[in-house]
Amino acid sequence: MPVISRFPVRYAETDQMGVVHHAAYVPWLEQGRVDWLAELGVSYAELERSGVYFPVVGLELAYRRALRFGDTVGVETRLSELASRLLVFAYRVFREGDAEPAATGRSVHVPQDAAGRVRRLPEDLYERLKAAAERET
Amino acid sequence: MPVISRFPVRYAETDQMGVVHHAAYVPWLEQGRVDWLAELGVSYAELERSGVYFPVVGLELAYRRALRFGDTVGVETRLSELASRLLVFAYRVFREGDAEPAATGRSVHVPQDAAGRVRRLPEDLYERLKAAAERET
Amino acid sequence: MPVISRFPVRYAETDQMGVVHHAAYVPWLEQGRVDWLAELGVSYAELERSGVYFPVVGLELAYRRALRFGDTVGVETRLSELASRLLVFAYRVFREGDAEPAATGRSVHVPQDAAGRVRRLPEDLYERLKAAAERET
Amino acid sequence: MPVISRFPVRYAETDQMGVVHHAAYVPWLEQGRVDWLAELGVSYAELERSGVYFPVVGLELAYRRALRFGDTVGVETRLSELASRLLVFAYRVFREGDAEPAATGRSVHVPQDAAGRVRRLPEDLYERLKAAAERET
Repeated sequence: MPVISRFPVRYAETDQMGVVHHAAYVPWLEQGRVDWLAELGVSYAELERSGVYFPVVGLELAYRRALRFGDTVGVETRLSELASRLLVFAYRVFREGDAEPAATGRSVHVPQDAAGRVRRLPEDLYERLKAAAERET
Repeated sequence: MPVISRFPVRYAETDQMGVVHHAAYVPWLEQGRVDWLAELGVSYAELERSGVYFPVVGLELAYRRALRFGDTVGVETRLSELASRLLVFAYRVFREGDAEPAATGRSVHVPQDAAGRVRRLPEDLYERLKAAAERET
Repeated sequence: MPVISRFPVRYAETDQMGVVHHAAYVPWLEQGRVDWLAELGVSYAELERSGVYFPVVGLELAYRRALRFGDTVGVETRLSELASRLLVFAYRVFREGDAEPAATGRSVHVPQDAAGRVRRLPEDLYERLKAAAERET
Repeated sequence: MPVISRFPVRYAETDQMGVVHHAAYVPWLEQGRVDWLAELGVSYAELERSGVYFPVVGLELAYRRALRFGDTVGVETRLSELASRLLVFAYRVFREGDAEPAATGRSVHVPQDAAGRVRRLPEDLYERLKAAAERET
């Protein structure tokens, strides 16, 4: 089951076109995967302290309809692909109340250690992510 | 010939991984296309005042090597695709002095009017963009 | 009674010092006053549509202890000063669970119309703000 | 002599009021003091690597006139106060071509080590800063 993160559009996230600036969605997706991990019982803050980092190596966003200050945003996150050295998250960004997503996206991550070297996911974490990803398909 | 935008990494653009946060690249690409247009003699600020907007409908980024505070960034921008209702810009982000890009990206734009309706590019602008795009191939 | 806004620290809000960057607090205060107004039944989005803007003319922040990714932030907002052409909001930013604020701040606003001219607050809005400010003292 | 940092307003720095959002000035001031230090031959990136951090403990901004996308910004920075455990920078933000500042500001810093403990400035750095501050008065 995908996890939903909800928050209001911040005024600072708008631009002079009167809508949310396209860069503002990027931290939203990040919050989406942090919440997805938290739902699984995994604190990303603790993960980093244990030496596991998920830097972004790829990012894709498709913007379908504008969001505005005053809107409440829902980010629906799921893990769409998993290997021992790869994670792909998929996102759908909704304006609360809408059936169609305002944007969709994907982020690709390669697990690293604190020194920035690619590393395998710890076995137990991998198993938990795997089980969660399968529940989402 | 692609246009190069240069600027220092801002401290605020770093994150606790000690490198530039992946969201910080998005305004860099935007500055890249603003500078590309300026090089062609087109002020994006004036373009908007004349009722032509280039909202982002698609965005892709591939991050290859981390950038750090203290680095000077160069964004190389070119127009890679053009139709009367579509513009695609392609970017290569370099750390000054490096031969290989730190990141590559693409942004897709659909021209709109002030009310957010899709519109054709003004003919003269289209011709100038077309000529510039051809010089870059 | 002050209004409390709560949200998690975003990863993008950290910097290479490993703590929340000082600029990230500024949109938090903004969210604080938007929520304070909402609690009063005033939508800032609608206020702007009706031609009343509260641009920031002054801002002060004192940072007392660092906040970190993983922390939940609470922003306590109150209206500390009010005149027909002036609003001052005061803020205390807490890390959830702490008794002492991590930061305190103040923002000064002058009501403007859509053209950027100083204007008086609408009478009924002024009365509601006044009553709320008095309840907070 | 104050040091001037120059850069274009970024589109992402605007908000739906059609002007630069007040939070966007904060990284500008930061760039101002980084450039001020660089002018003195001090790399803030290296300073941190040597264990000297200048976290912001206080920040003040007064916004006098709006800045817009299309404007070139100049930030004039000087060191206005110095003690062995305190630095205060003062800033004037200009729109290029204007005689009057668009904003003025101040940031207060307490030197820290990597663990976040207050520390004295290294003696040689203190002397260089002192000499520079005196030249500016």
